[in-house]
Amino acid sequence: MKSHTAYLTMNLPTRRAFVNITQDVRDAVEKSGVREGMVLVNAMHISASVFINDDESGLHHDYDAWLERLAPHAPTNQYRHNDTGEDNADAHLKRQVMGREVVVAITAGKLDFGPWEQVFYGEFDGRRKKRVLIKVIGE
Amino acid sequence: MKSHTAYLTMNLPTRRAFVNITQDVRDAVEKSGVREGMVLVNAMHISASVFINDDESGLHHDYDAWLERLAPHAPTNQYRHNDTGEDNADAHLKRQVMGREVVVAITAGKLDFGPWEQVFYGEFDGRRKKRVLIKVIGE
Amino acid sequence: MKSHTAYLTMNLPTRRAFVNITQDVRDAVEKSGVREGMVLVNAMHISASVFINDDESGLHHDYDAWLERLAPHAPTNQYRHNDTGEDNADAHLKRQVMGREVVVAITAGKLDFGPWEQVFYGEFDGRRKKRVLIKVIGE
Repeated sequence: MKSHTAYLTMNLPTRRAFVNITQDVRDAVEKSGVREGMVLVNAMHISASVFINDDESGLHHDYDAWLERLAPHAPTNQYRHNDTGEDNADAHLKRQVMGREVVVAITAGKLDFGPWEQVFYGEFDGRRKKRVLIKVIGE
Repeated sequence: MKSHTAYLTMNLPTRRAFVNITQDVRDAVEKSGVREGMVLVNAMHISASVFINDDESGLHHDYDAWLERLAPHAPTNQYRHNDTGEDNADAHLKRQVMGREVVVAITAGKLDFGPWEQVFYGEFDGRRKKRVLIKVIGE
Repeated sequence: MKSHTAYLTMNLPTRRAFVNITQDVRDAVEKSGVREGMVLVNAMHISASVFINDDESGLHHDYDAWLERLAPHAPTNQYRHNDTGEDNADAHLKRQVMGREVVVAITAGKLDFGPWEQVFYGEFDGRRKKRVLIKVIGE
């Protein structure tokens, strides 16, 4: 069994953002030399997500507006987590809707993707350094 | 390490539906010859889900009504994604709640399932051809 | 390839609760002898979750209140699933928001975690025996 581990560093200038990291995942799979296996991609921080969807700016706007409706940032004092001095309770909720991780099949050395699948990092509490983990296993 | 890849084709006559695909997953595991490992099952399209829950029609009704409340289909012009000419923005949101994929343990050659676990394909924008990927790895 | 399987038994005295199971996952990884690989941790019951987030009691309060807002337990007759004699339809919905499973990378024999990541069992219909599966694969 082969394995390969890569880490991406994120430091986004806004509280919320979506970043396409598909090429980084492809690069890690290529480096691994794995032809048949799986790749795990996960946020290493608990107020961020990794998810797979469409690279379409209107959709990303819709996600942002929808997540704000499901779990609004303000008023921050509606959340007990924010009694600790944080203001990011909403980010912990939003991340659960969008998910922590994705697992993608590797077939014949490539990400085995449908026509529109792209991997995104979803930031819900930016303006600080965070990391994404890419773990490839297979043979 | 052994691996096996299977693809299911879906083409459902309604916009939204849930389809039990547990037997297809069992068949792929059996074909793989894997005794200890994992199987990944994912929607290859970004307006559909694969998830694990109960095969109970009342519950499926509840999921559908609940998802419509969280992310209504209409009015379609409430979503910027639909400015592209699509009318399926809600499907991209519903899919995030229900998830893209499941990973299931294989123990002694079988899906290592609790008493009620069943694998479902969740369609949120049907009436077109879509695919599901099943990837088995292990030994 | 090495593999190792462990099962945890849960029997919580309340309908809803969050339990930190990180040490159990670490123990299973250590027992497996796997240095590079992945560990899958999933609820084996369909009204419970396994997820990764912060071990902070205010946040857990926020999760509970938020999930009750998204998918209220009462009135129980709002759900068709409850026509079967159950009263736990809301638990099946809450579990979809929080997720069934997590997959965690193992690097150099350890859970490859960010600074705040902890694994939780989320119970949404307790007062009965349930199980969690931990499956380790790698080498």
